[in-house]
Amino acid sequence: MKMTKFFCDISMSLDGFVAGPGITLEEPLGKNGEHLHDWVLRLASWRSQHGQEGGETGPDDDLVRATQARPGAVVMGRKMFSGGSGPWESDPNADAWWGDNPPFHVPVFVLTHHEREPVVKEGGTTFTFVTDGIESAVAQALAAAGDKDVLLSGGASIVQQSLRARLVDELHIHVAPRLLGGGVSLFGDLGADAPQLTLKNVVESPFVTHLSYEVERT
Amino acid sequence: MKMTKFFCDISMSLDGFVAGPGITLEEPLGKNGEHLHDWVLRLASWRSQHGQEGGETGPDDDLVRATQARPGAVVMGRKMFSGGSGPWESDPNADAWWGDNPPFHVPVFVLTHHEREPVVKEGGTTFTFVTDGIESAVAQALAAAGDKDVLLSGGASIVQQSLRARLVDELHIHVAPRLLGGGVSLFGDLGADAPQLTLKNVVESPFVTHLSYEVERT
Repeated sequence: MKMTKFFCDISMSLDGFVAGPGITLEEPLGKNGEHLHDWVLRLASWRSQHGQEGGETGPDDDLVRATQARPGAVVMGRKMFSGGSGPWESDPNADAWWGDNPPFHVPVFVLTHHEREPVVKEGGTTFTFVTDGIESAVAQALAAAGDKDVLLSGGASIVQQSLRARLVDELHIHVAPRLLGGGVSLFGDLGADAPQLTLKNVVESPFVTHLSYEVERT
Repeated sequence: MKMTKFFCDISMSLDGFVAGPGITLEEPLGKNGEHLHDWVLRLASWRSQHGQEGGETGPDDDLVRATQARPGAVVMGRKMFSGGSGPWESDPNADAWWGDNPPFHVPVFVLTHHEREPVVKEGGTTFTFVTDGIESAVAQALAAAGDKDVLLSGGASIVQQSLRARLVDELHIHVAPRLLGGGVSLFGDLGADAPQLTLKNVVESPFVTHLSYEVERT
């Protein structure tokens, strides 16, 4: 029995958005969307992962550090990868946001409608482009992760597809104390496809509330 | 300076709904919406307020008991009052859900488009119908509450109106560990009218997560 987990870890506003209104290439998280991540940018664990020194320690940092250690592979959507859509030739951000040494350091599987050869970056990050659906992306990621877990990184569309397909084992939501007022809804309208949840853990800090749920696969 | 607070206290699903899809008079909270309140129905404080004996004690119960002691008046929307809309003569639930002795025991101000004489119930609950807008309803409730606070009870429409008008001092959200998949969104799309929040307190239990925020009035 495979004991590795497919877990989603994502920051959300209290009104349920993972990005604000008015998304552009210059403002990929929309208006005020970047503030959903204020809590993590200050942490030593996040700074270290992104090649920066210093940062705060404490419960938030402990939690992020533990999460960073888990994934042996990452699954993300095309929108999170480049912000674009359509053929890669016409995507001005086809090389993504993260430069030569992305912060993943494991195989990353990008769900897209448009075929593309894998991209090998420095530091252990490879991007593989999967065009035959979310089940295939998750299966490939689980195989690549070995004994480690697979991180579902976002955005909203791939999270919803994964929940509908009953692929997600754990949901880790970082609720930022903020109302974005609009934008990209994390859960949208899952309808009758919404799975059951069990609350597993809550960690609080002045800057964010971390809610962890087990997700029923049936 | 008036130190009394206008506070919203409401249960919400993780995907942001206060009622599920398919609302009817028989199922006023929509499909599975009643489960948002599972956590409170088991508590001694809630049972006592509703004339029932027994029930559980603990952190959830302490929190509900403290909240019950606060309001000197309540503000609610027409939908929460009767589930109906339009003229009262054609509202089959014009007498509301709570019988002769509603659980409020204070003046309740119901925001509606349709004028109606006040209704006096047993146990100290009076229903006053306010047709000149949310500011008026809140002002009348604050005056009636004296030194006590005013509870904004719901539903979503009046919560959004109150947030847009910068009337709310505190937001107490009970996040049920559940995805409803659709229904009535608590915050909707507030747009640029969304106020700033400050996280004040988190109380956790296996059944619900209580998030308290201070809301900026400017």
